[in-house]
Amino acid sequence: MPVFSRFTPLTSSLPSTVPFVGPEALERQRGVAVKARIGANESGFGPSPRVIEAMRREAGEIWKYNDPENFNLKRALAAHLGIRSANVAIGEGVDSLLGLIVRMIVSADTPVVTSHGGYPTFNFHVAAFGGKLVTVPYLDDRENLEGLLDAVRRENAPLVYLANPDNPMGSWWDQERVVAFAKALPETCMLVLDEAYSETAPASSLPPIAAFIDMPNILRTRTFSKAYGLAGARVGYAIGVPETVAAFDKLRNHFGMNRLATVGALAALDDQGYLTEVIGKIHGAQERIAIIARDNGLMPLASATNFVAIDCGRDAIYAKAIVDGLFDHGVFIRMPGVAPLNRCVRVSVGQKADLDLFEQALPQVIQTLR
Amino acid sequence: MPVFSRFTPLTSSLPSTVPFVGPEALERQRGVAVKARIGANESGFGPSPRVIEAMRREAGEIWKYNDPENFNLKRALAAHLGIRSANVAIGEGVDSLLGLIVRMIVSADTPVVTSHGGYPTFNFHVAAFGGKLVTVPYLDDRENLEGLLDAVRRENAPLVYLANPDNPMGSWWDQERVVAFAKALPETCMLVLDEAYSETAPASSLPPIAAFIDMPNILRTRTFSKAYGLAGARVGYAIGVPETVAAFDKLRNHFGMNRLATVGALAALDDQGYLTEVIGKIHGAQERIAIIARDNGLMPLASATNFVAIDCGRDAIYAKAIVDGLFDHGVFIRMPGVAPLNRCVRVSVGQKADLDLFEQALPQVIQTLR
Repeated sequence: MPVFSRFTPLTSSLPSTVPFVGPEALERQRGVAVKARIGANESGFGPSPRVIEAMRREAGEIWKYNDPENFNLKRALAAHLGIRSANVAIGEGVDSLLGLIVRMIVSADTPVVTSHGGYPTFNFHVAAFGGKLVTVPYLDDRENLEGLLDAVRRENAPLVYLANPDNPMGSWWDQERVVAFAKALPETCMLVLDEAYSETAPASSLPPIAAFIDMPNILRTRTFSKAYGLAGARVGYAIGVPETVAAFDKLRNHFGMNRLATVGALAALDDQGYLTEVIGKIHGAQERIAIIARDNGLMPLASATNFVAIDCGRDAIYAKAIVDGLFDHGVFIRMPGVAPLNRCVRVSVGQKADLDLFEQALPQVIQTLR
Repeated sequence: MPVFSRFTPLTSSLPSTVPFVGPEALERQRGVAVKARIGANESGFGPSPRVIEAMRREAGEIWKYNDPENFNLKRALAAHLGIRSANVAIGEGVDSLLGLIVRMIVSADTPVVTSHGGYPTFNFHVAAFGGKLVTVPYLDDRENLEGLLDAVRRENAPLVYLANPDNPMGSWWDQERVVAFAKALPETCMLVLDEAYSETAPASSLPPIAAFIDMPNILRTRTFSKAYGLAGARVGYAIGVPETVAAFDKLRNHFGMNRLATVGALAALDDQGYLTEVIGKIHGAQERIAIIARDNGLMPLASATNFVAIDCGRDAIYAKAIVDGLFDHGVFIRMPGVAPLNRCVRVSVGQKADLDLFEQALPQVIQTLR
């Protein structure tokens, strides 16, 4: 079949790729059913029962498009955060918002700074808009703030990505360091401060909302996919000055939000008691994952997220053998993509039964690899 | 507040706009509650009860990301249409797919051909990627196939949009004419054949799937938002050759689909009996809308969609006064955006109670305008 000849040169040059292979694809490829789904940084604790109830109640209204202005959800988030609705943009997960942010700023060969081994979906978007990724190695398993700042200055980059807490390592910086980094950036550089794991982070790591609320070059992104347990709903949001937030409306799929997702997010936000309870469970699961790792001679890294990176003490081949070996037992985990991070595997929190399976399978896998 | 200085020139040049103002925004602006929601070409008949049941059943699984490959839905659509999964792309509504198609092909000043008054969201995407819209007037309230073809040739356009059946007029071409149009296009021009209303269209208007399944320059788009009653779910799909369909994977938000939406779409596809029943109801509602129009001295146009365009016999000011007047009665309808189409209003099908309200309010509104 001849290929259509007039795709843009950029489109033609790109691979047809998936930034993350889903566990469903692995199941199909390998003929193994996933029994413990603890690889995608979802929350196996699920959302509040009130969220599920709200979505079930709204299901009969699914014939109606969602309000394209997302008025109610913006207002609720604004009230929750003590800001204005005009400070909030809503999207189909942070992934969608990252794509739009890149699109606002990046054209052919635009330098964009991120950490080597940072969030691949951001990189996917940068490549797909023709930008030039400039990466800075992690330092002691944390994103290197000085290095990122230097790269921005050196490249005169208009866009830099920082996740705090970080994925895939689970590490974090104290908020004073994050604020200092953000304020040291030239105002010609947009900072995407990805705070997908803000709910599970120590309070000391999160800059107050007021810290950046007047800065046109900062967008903080957050999500209902992690601690709120709504990964399958696709609700993310960005926080910024109204003039920056308004740019999303120039580009976005205005009718992209699922109606039940919005209703679910509103109910989730409204049940902070459940969130507190779940954060306790997440911390408990983190501790258990760490204990299982140590019991098997591996080294868990401290985590501010809903997963634990575990240093397997050898190379990427060894870590990958553990990932693959666990999958054969129906235990789905993931690992970082690049060295030196990929000496680790990454295990997401889950229910007791999930971690039981992990606990049972891990020594068997390690035994096999000896 | 200073605006961030390094948005791309294109982004800076765009307005922060919504292609369609939602009924919720109108309710807020005007302090009127919508009682009959018959303006957005949704289906007030809703989806199959089995769809709602399936979504409710799956609600507890919302903590899991949807399969980014959309394997099951692609397979089901392929089986339903007698094609291969590789012929199908899935997106968050056709709006999302249109954005991606435009992005694949359009860069600064790329000429893109569509009808003057055709689907505004397509135009929104063309503008947002810097393309140059070349529009062809409707002819007798139908999209002008000869005119579109001439414009493609004259402009050497790599992209043309045709909706069959058409929105906002509800008109259509027989499939022989559509096939002839598609085959007359230069193979250097991608045709987006938007078939959002395929389920309600006369069979004679729909080219067989086989007609274009080997043509790299044709993408047919379809949706679960209309006859299937799932507008709030956001599930659209595109049909094309595998090489063209693969281009979506280069650009799309791989984790953009809502999990319940996918489950709902699968259940909807599986209940063709309900679809047949609903199409009967849609045709019944079309007839009733036409009768109400005629009873009020207005002229309904024939429709192959889930709405009826009604020629109000005067200018856009008059048609807008009818739209606004009805809204004061809680009846939400819309109207086309440009002359000469905007002598009409557009009324979507709905339940008996919705059309009762329309029937009661319309003569009062017209009386007021005399």
